[in-house]
Amino acid sequence: MKAVVLVSGGLDSATVLAIARRDGFDCYALSLRYGQRHAYELDAAERVVRALGAVQHHVMSIDLSSFGGSALTDMSIDVPEEPTDGIPITYVPARNTVFLSLALAWAEVLGSRDIFIGVTAVDYSGYPDCRPEFIRAFEATANLATKAGVEGQNFTIHTPLIDLSKREIIEQGIALGVDYGLTVSCYQPSDAGVACGRCESCRLRRQGFEAAGVADPTVYQNQ
Amino acid sequence: MKAVVLVSGGLDSATVLAIARRDGFDCYALSLRYGQRHAYELDAAERVVRALGAVQHHVMSIDLSSFGGSALTDMSIDVPEEPTDGIPITYVPARNTVFLSLALAWAEVLGSRDIFIGVTAVDYSGYPDCRPEFIRAFEATANLATKAGVEGQNFTIHTPLIDLSKREIIEQGIALGVDYGLTVSCYQPSDAGVACGRCESCRLRRQGFEAAGVADPTVYQNQ
Repeated sequence: MKAVVLVSGGLDSATVLAIARRDGFDCYALSLRYGQRHAYELDAAERVVRALGAVQHHVMSIDLSSFGGSALTDMSIDVPEEPTDGIPITYVPARNTVFLSLALAWAEVLGSRDIFIGVTAVDYSGYPDCRPEFIRAFEATANLATKAGVEGQNFTIHTPLIDLSKREIIEQGIALGVDYGLTVSCYQPSDAGVACGRCESCRLRRQGFEAAGVADPTVYQNQ
Repeated sequence: MKAVVLVSGGLDSATVLAIARRDGFDCYALSLRYGQRHAYELDAAERVVRALGAVQHHVMSIDLSSFGGSALTDMSIDVPEEPTDGIPITYVPARNTVFLSLALAWAEVLGSRDIFIGVTAVDYSGYPDCRPEFIRAFEATANLATKAGVEGQNFTIHTPLIDLSKREIIEQGIALGVDYGLTVSCYQPSDAGVACGRCESCRLRRQGFEAAGVADPTVYQNQ
């Protein structure tokens, strides 16, 4: 059975790809070059897909930085290095809606009814489009939006990490043989791709490895 | 008040832009270069936006033709010239979900809560993502997907044409001063941009002008 798997090059989506593979899906990996400041993660996505395996890896360009409005796509907005109240400025407006829409388009063409995305609503940044209620709403929309849905072949948006802590995600990935040394989580790596160790994504990652009692393979500028 | 208006260069979206302008919105026009075979319509979109006015016109590229699966994005699939049963092969998988997602992303950055799209479920091709139930589902998803939605600033997806026949759309546009000679509906215009007169989009357009008793400004290869 075919599945479209959104792969960013980060820790979570690498784990999701390993889970989809374990569950027997023929995986079609989709990565987005969306104008993120950490385009280095696309190299990581390629490494991850090569290591875990996929029928095809499609890297698609969609320039969300032309809209701006997020520290991840607008170089004039600094990535925060301290926790902030509410939804942080690293939120990219409607990003997961855009990504899931593109995954849906590809899935329908492939004849796949299964889409995997590595959202989590436990150790996360509070992004609204990582929550279960968003995922369920998107799934309902997908089934009304498509020819496949109208013909009764319902789409499932798989979110195997949504209820897991970062520790649990890492434990599951390690058990499945994921090499987290291939992945990049940092929002603002150096030109050489070295993680800052200070942004929220680095913080969540470091804490996850600590909690799991697993050596963190990441090299941080700030050890 | 700001609104994002999806403008394809066709008859329907030109009418929608005129309606949004009449209703007093500051319009941000969004057009997609999505790998459509009739890229000529993007020139039409520019003409339409120039004639009707917008604060900004953003043409964004997203290569849905790399997925294929539709006569509009895959040159190896012919555009049908006779009516077909069911949803025709000109259906582009998840196209309106992708387009609305991008409009949503831009709207959130702009601080706009209003998105206009020229779908109609009367004289149409049966595309599932033109139906009111899809639009309502997308709207619900948008309000769960976004920071603005979480903060209680609900998005509205405006579909002023959804219950109108092609005749009624044309009558409304004429009353608002839309110059339909600027628009392109054909799925397979010639290299010079001349409409074929045979595809479903041309048929619906011709019939609409006939029913409205208005001279059709379109030049067809097959008069």
